Amino acid sequence: MARVDEAHRQRQRQKILSAARTCFARNGFHRTSMDDLLAEAGMSAGAFYRYYRGKDAVIAAIASEAVGRIAATVAGLVEERSTPSLETSLRRVFAAVDRLARDDVAGLALQVWAETERDPVLAAVAREQLDRLRVQLTSLVQRAIDDLPSGAAENVGAALFSLLPGYLVEQRVVGGLDPDRFVDGLLAAFRSPGGH
Amino acid sequence: MARVDEAHRQRQRQKILSAARTCFARNGFHRTSMDDLLAEAGMSAGAFYRYYRGKDAVIAAIASEAVGRIAATVAGLVEERSTPSLETSLRRVFAAVDRLARDDVAGLALQVWAETERDPVLAAVAREQLDRLRVQLTSLVQRAIDDLPSGAAENVGAALFSLLPGYLVEQRVVGGLDPDRFVDGLLAAFRSPGGH
Repeated sequence: MARVDEAHRQRQRQKILSAARTCFARNGFHRTSMDDLLAEAGMSAGAFYRYYRGKDAVIAAIASEAVGRIAATVAGLVEERSTPSLETSLRRVFAAVDRLARDDVAGLALQVWAETERDPVLAAVAREQLDRLRVQLTSLVQRAIDDLPSGAAENVGAALFSLLPGYLVEQRVVGGLDPDRFVDGLLAAFRSPGGH
Repeated sequence: MARVDEAHRQRQRQKILSAARTCFARNGFHRTSMDDLLAEAGMSAGAFYRYYRGKDAVIAAIASEAVGRIAATVAGLVEERSTPSLETSLRRVFAAVDRLARDDVAGLALQVWAETERDPVLAAVAREQLDRLRVQLTSLVQRAIDDLPSGAAENVGAALFSLLPGYLVEQRVVGGLDPDRFVDGLLAAFRSPGGH
């Protein structure tokens, strides 16, 4: 019985998140009211509040799921018995980032970042989620680059981390990115002796 | 006389932009009405419309000024008789990006990117401005890296370009970036033989 209940709760949560993604992609989350969200989900307020505290909690859950997709790729690389090279790692991470950038949820990420400027609760959630991803990326860097000078990993992690939101903004706003050519570009920039 | 008029027009435009920056930083540009803007600028609607077509045109002007600060740094590097190395170029560009990231206008950039998802006019303005900066960065790359394989410059430009919005998002949302340590991180990531 408990298992059935949990499965039902999972389905209800997914129903809310899916309705929210539709509403947010259509009108942005500012212009999406709780009524819009409930109508799209076909759910009563009473049912909704059993799962989420409000619109902000739904936004945080969607953002967390999106960050989680990249985090899962990074975690997969860290956990391999012999961590792949930086090049292979970058190719796998940017394949995942590119999939995310082509999804509606990327538009929501842009909204979340904008909103952190004025919403301290959302700012704290976003900071915490992204900081965790940055730490994870730093640990990938430490494994992928054997001869990294001690103390350099944090700078490297911070620099490589910026490529994730950077790719997303560039792909959404300017367009034309291909993840493999993007990694080729990174490698060519710094590999070349003239680039040093 | 004409010169005095032009100086006056310049001052009026700056007054509007400055009032708009204050309003947008306070409430976001969605929640800033034309009335709020006019009140902040201490200006009548009639006076305002002599300078800007509406709120969107003001946003575009502020965004253009912000992109222009980075573009000016890149242009300065391209125009030096002997273009500085990639490392020197990156240090100068990220010093400028860091100043921008610490300015209120960076919050507006995040809002503009979010809004491009639903506002096709703003999307076209943002795409055009950022694409021009990407082209300019690509031409800097071609000059700064002597031995770049032919055809690689565009990939390198696209990859390095993403670092600009990436730095901005990371600094605003997660924080803790220092431009020089950021460039150190980039160089360490790819310089290291283990990183290849």
